[in-house]
Amino acid sequence: MTKAFSEDSLKTESIDAQSFLAGCRKQVDQSLERLVPLETTEPTRIHSAIRWSLLAGGKRFRPSLAIAVGEVFGATADVLMGAACALEMVHTYSLIHDDLPSMDDDDMRRGRPSCHLRFDEATAILAGDALQALAFQTIAEDERLAPAIRLLLISELARAAGTPYGMIAGQAFDLAAESRDISETDLETIHRHKTGALIRAAARTGAIVAGAGEDQLQAITQFGEHLGLLFQITDDLLDVTASAETLGKTPGKDARARKATYPALHGLEATQALARKVHDDACRSLDFITLPTGLLRSIADQVLSRRG
Amino acid sequence: MTKAFSEDSLKTESIDAQSFLAGCRKQVDQSLERLVPLETTEPTRIHSAIRWSLLAGGKRFRPSLAIAVGEVFGATADVLMGAACALEMVHTYSLIHDDLPSMDDDDMRRGRPSCHLRFDEATAILAGDALQALAFQTIAEDERLAPAIRLLLISELARAAGTPYGMIAGQAFDLAAESRDISETDLETIHRHKTGALIRAAARTGAIVAGAGEDQLQAITQFGEHLGLLFQITDDLLDVTASAETLGKTPGKDARARKATYPALHGLEATQALARKVHDDACRSLDFITLPTGLLRSIADQVLSRRG
Repeated sequence: MTKAFSEDSLKTESIDAQSFLAGCRKQVDQSLERLVPLETTEPTRIHSAIRWSLLAGGKRFRPSLAIAVGEVFGATADVLMGAACALEMVHTYSLIHDDLPSMDDDDMRRGRPSCHLRFDEATAILAGDALQALAFQTIAEDERLAPAIRLLLISELARAAGTPYGMIAGQAFDLAAESRDISETDLETIHRHKTGALIRAAARTGAIVAGAGEDQLQAITQFGEHLGLLFQITDDLLDVTASAETLGKTPGKDARARKATYPALHGLEATQALARKVHDDACRSLDFITLPTGLLRSIADQVLSRRG
Repeated sequence: MTKAFSEDSLKTESIDAQSFLAGCRKQVDQSLERLVPLETTEPTRIHSAIRWSLLAGGKRFRPSLAIAVGEVFGATADVLMGAACALEMVHTYSLIHDDLPSMDDDDMRRGRPSCHLRFDEATAILAGDALQALAFQTIAEDERLAPAIRLLLISELARAAGTPYGMIAGQAFDLAAESRDISETDLETIHRHKTGALIRAAARTGAIVAGAGEDQLQAITQFGEHLGLLFQITDDLLDVTASAETLGKTPGKDARARKATYPALHGLEATQALARKVHDDACRSLDFITLPTGLLRSIADQVLSRRG
């Protein structure tokens, strides 16, 4: 029942998002560890594959965002944890499936061989499928949350993960774009669905768990949408500028695959300016929130300046 | 709010399961049609792929079983329909993923080219993923059901679909068995998870929606387990005896893939005797139910004598 930050620290504008995120990451790692079957449980290979991908030291950005928003609105990290972990399960399943040979065909993820290389393609498909089921199970069975809240969260997560509004739609838009030149509007459509929907859902998850009012939820939704776009733009920037060691995945891959990215459309400098603009939009959304939002502003700063 | 059968017809032991199942199939088809995005909704290719596989005229056995059990316990088909469709969505997603080249590599399903052949592998993976999300969304947003019931159903479906108790575990056991000789116990473990778990969940779904008491739910669980095993045994028999036209998928495939099946372990005649024994076990489970169960017995008869 402890908050990752005390009430006092939320009131300052100079909250250290980095240490907040590090604290969340540790708690999320511990919870995920408890939520998935052990490697010794039969059938062992699939459980090893799930753990290989899920417990590989990801940034845990989505669950941490849910916890941050929830804490701003007065919920405890403890109550938020199950729903936060469900977001990470869906994110991880999407990474496993994205890396498959028939999708992005990526060899490296979170600093280690991707699931289908370490195990095999069939096992990787099943590991992703199982993680999606476990995400919904985790929320449905989370007795720390009122039944009506659990249902709202499941609906939110399913829509953000699926189609036509969510992540799967984004992947499908991305596949359709591979063979042709695309506009900035197309690129935004891809990202709004592919990565944006789940980050938006993470922000809304925190607010829903905390029982935020409709207008506050609207503001947080705006914040989540801008933050999601910012996250993608900085992801595109990192693909150009970062090393494999920092990224934990293959850099420069977008350019080689001739994937549409913001730097490819606008050049590096204009993309950096766009990132600053979107960051400011995100922060302005928070002006409509009547509680101290220093932590969320600080997280937006972190995303703008992230190195991995 | 109409029942597929009147109260009176449930009281006779001579209920025509065939026409009940045909009626359910039609209603389920209509509901599924309304629950999935249109082919004209962007991104169109993924929605075409989902509809290609989901609306391909499957038997709708799992949703029909849920409706049958629910009606026996006093629920209407209307109230049962959302949860029933969710079961079919999970079943269809599993078929799409099973047919992939890295899994069973099957070219034909429900009488037409499998999803990855008609579209492409990436689209087939995404279509399956989207159907799983839509299944949970459908239950979570089904306002015909009380919130507590929706949560029980989501938990039930997630466990039946996932691992270590459900369908994904069954697939993983099956993969692990491919390279070695397996015993009858191994074979039962595969089937209890791979097909049994979802059929068991279908039976339980009907009882949960109808608010059946704990002892009645136990009896229905037993019935669902026996029926699931019977379904798999007759599936194995059909793989040996039926034509591609009747099956809608490639027959004789198990034998060619040297997959473990009941006929391979016991021979045809002993497998037919086993089917009759399991059928009788299923019917005996129903003796503990204090309502007329003629419809369910008749469904067990249908499964025993099925031709496709």
